[in-house]
Amino acid sequence: MQWKTSEFDEKANALIGAGRQLSAQGMVPATSGNLSARLSDGNIAITVSGRHKGKLAPSDIMLVDPDGHSLDGQRPSAETLLHTRLYRRFTEIQYVLHPHSVHATVLSRLCGDWLSLQDYEILKALPDVHTHDCEVRLPVFENDQNMERLAEVVDACLDRMENPAGYLIRGHGFYTWGLSLEDALRHVEAFEFLFECELKMRELQR
Amino acid sequence: MQWKTSEFDEKANALIGAGRQLSAQGMVPATSGNLSARLSDGNIAITVSGRHKGKLAPSDIMLVDPDGHSLDGQRPSAETLLHTRLYRRFTEIQYVLHPHSVHATVLSRLCGDWLSLQDYEILKALPDVHTHDCEVRLPVFENDQNMERLAEVVDACLDRMENPAGYLIRGHGFYTWGLSLEDALRHVEAFEFLFECELKMRELQR
Amino acid sequence: MQWKTSEFDEKANALIGAGRQLSAQGMVPATSGNLSARLSDGNIAITVSGRHKGKLAPSDIMLVDPDGHSLDGQRPSAETLLHTRLYRRFTEIQYVLHPHSVHATVLSRLCGDWLSLQDYEILKALPDVHTHDCEVRLPVFENDQNMERLAEVVDACLDRMENPAGYLIRGHGFYTWGLSLEDALRHVEAFEFLFECELKMRELQR
Amino acid sequence: MQWKTSEFDEKANALIGAGRQLSAQGMVPATSGNLSARLSDGNIAITVSGRHKGKLAPSDIMLVDPDGHSLDGQRPSAETLLHTRLYRRFTEIQYVLHPHSVHATVLSRLCGDWLSLQDYEILKALPDVHTHDCEVRLPVFENDQNMERLAEVVDACLDRMENPAGYLIRGHGFYTWGLSLEDALRHVEAFEFLFECELKMRELQR
Repeated sequence: MQWKTSEFDEKANALIGAGRQLSAQGMVPATSGNLSARLSDGNIAITVSGRHKGKLAPSDIMLVDPDGHSLDGQRPSAETLLHTRLYRRFTEIQYVLHPHSVHATVLSRLCGDWLSLQDYEILKALPDVHTHDCEVRLPVFENDQNMERLAEVVDACLDRMENPAGYLIRGHGFYTWGLSLEDALRHVEAFEFLFECELKMRELQR
Repeated sequence: MQWKTSEFDEKANALIGAGRQLSAQGMVPATSGNLSARLSDGNIAITVSGRHKGKLAPSDIMLVDPDGHSLDGQRPSAETLLHTRLYRRFTEIQYVLHPHSVHATVLSRLCGDWLSLQDYEILKALPDVHTHDCEVRLPVFENDQNMERLAEVVDACLDRMENPAGYLIRGHGFYTWGLSLEDALRHVEAFEFLFECELKMRELQR
Repeated sequence: MQWKTSEFDEKANALIGAGRQLSAQGMVPATSGNLSARLSDGNIAITVSGRHKGKLAPSDIMLVDPDGHSLDGQRPSAETLLHTRLYRRFTEIQYVLHPHSVHATVLSRLCGDWLSLQDYEILKALPDVHTHDCEVRLPVFENDQNMERLAEVVDACLDRMENPAGYLIRGHGFYTWGLSLEDALRHVEAFEFLFECELKMRELQR
Repeated sequence: MQWKTSEFDEKANALIGAGRQLSAQGMVPATSGNLSARLSDGNIAITVSGRHKGKLAPSDIMLVDPDGHSLDGQRPSAETLLHTRLYRRFTEIQYVLHPHSVHATVLSRLCGDWLSLQDYEILKALPDVHTHDCEVRLPVFENDQNMERLAEVVDACLDRMENPAGYLIRGHGFYTWGLSLEDALRHVEAFEFLFECELKMRELQR
């Protein structure tokens, strides 16, 4: 296949490794979650629909154009549109990760339209955060099987935010991204840590 | 042994691998749980009674007929009848898995005759579920050491359900199945995730 | 060293493997816990005081006589007496394990002199238990740095029990044993599962 | 580089191994935490700012002088001053570890200026503790991005304590140290176990 460049292969391998790591951390159970990388020509390498992210093979990574249309005949994840919109919005990011952890799922069902995070040193792992003494607010969107509609809601919200680092979908995990895979995985670990802390705080402070 | 066909060996190896995976996830502690596969002649390969499912050897997988009678002189798990009834009911399924996790055990003791699951994206990992916006109901049966009686109760309930994907036994883990081992393991991961979420929701919403 | 027979080496290796497994399960943090095996001459192979049980070397296993006196000049664990008393009482057991898990520690601080376990299928992993529909009672002893005194209290209690499978020391983990290492490890996994379930039940039923 | 002695290489490797272990235990998520070792000439080997502690390479360990000034042009962790002050105070310790666990983070936000630990057998894993029947008090400092100021507050408190084994920073993990890496890691495991127990006790005793 002509489009399977060495850049595609390299980024597909990076996604396979990321999937294995997220699976070992329990963040992509069953066939949940999806992972993508931007290629230098603007197309996107993304996980095929319905595969287990902890056991990805090269053939489980496919190619879509910047609008999310399949370029190789395979069916991309239903949520591909959420990925491509992020690449369009943030022109410098190279990876988008969507983990689906217990902590994110439960916490997203317990909070309103925003999750507020304060006084955690680990907030400094997020972009442009230089002190624990600040508030990071993550939007929590209602889950929706209509991706066009969900993507519009997400876009309308992110339009009004300054340099957001991620968002939650209720009952459905979270999205985060980065300038490199290392960046994106650091955001995943920081958010997951924060979600677990917040859940424990709520258990103990009721 | 004549009955140890290459198909038996292959499916026994698949069960050994599944046992190792479930054990690493903490879902078959001590000698709990049991695993089976249907062979093309209708007989069933199933774990021998009393073995640790994380450390299965080929000799720990035995052969029973469609009624659960031993075909090789070994003693099958006490719960073999629950497996064979499922193979009889669902003529297309190839694997039945019975994990025994903390979350399933505790949750089954806290709910009534049914566990209702709603608004979780991961419900879509179950057969015939296409949206989070639905209710999946799992029956919870009273534990019983009399397998004939328990099997009758399970059957009477499943008779009235449309395409159920699993059930719980109180204080005793859960059963799920699939058209392939991959399917069945996906159901295990989805249910375990849902049980953990539900327990946390109950802790936080009391 | 003359006493280092091949039987000693074999059982020391078994203890090293058990320590690695218990450590991977988080049950022997820091230098907590201790492990022993009976030799055919009645002496006991036991872990040396103060070693990490997840990283045992052959030189971390020492020899004591049936009264717990060192036979090789090394200092045995302070709790050696609890092991030797169990070997004296139960003449058929071959291994005694003392894990020190979070669940056992917390649960032992929350209950009175007995922990009652009922309606769990996994109780059947314990000796002489054939149904979930029974009560298994585990004694919970006050922690004591005076081992002679603690051993007397334990003995006085066990004298009055029929075939107990383990006991807890408050804030200090639990003891269990078996006719083989496989038996003893099965009891560890069953108890740990039960302790985790009981803690969750108490969290949810307050 | 001249300063990269074989002693430096050896201790850098020890820190790399410690980072991998702490990461596997979930105690250094994202790029949190930092690790250091004292060299025989009084300088300190310490992790470079912003690296993932589970994936350290030799080039991620740098050299600072006893006041925390970089000796090799790299930027040390912002918290280097907390390490060097500990080496100055406790002239015999060789390693300082700063893990950043969920349990330490949440617990530090729930307690006041001190965390009191009592009646845990595992307290004996700490220096100079010989019985569970005592109180170990850990100071909990307010988090501060001004390291000079934070270091002064820590020093003023430790001045008044007898042989402390660690301290917490609110919302920001804990510090502990030891005469050897083995010692320091034992303290990490003991504290982490105690923090998890204390959180569970608080959940259950509210």
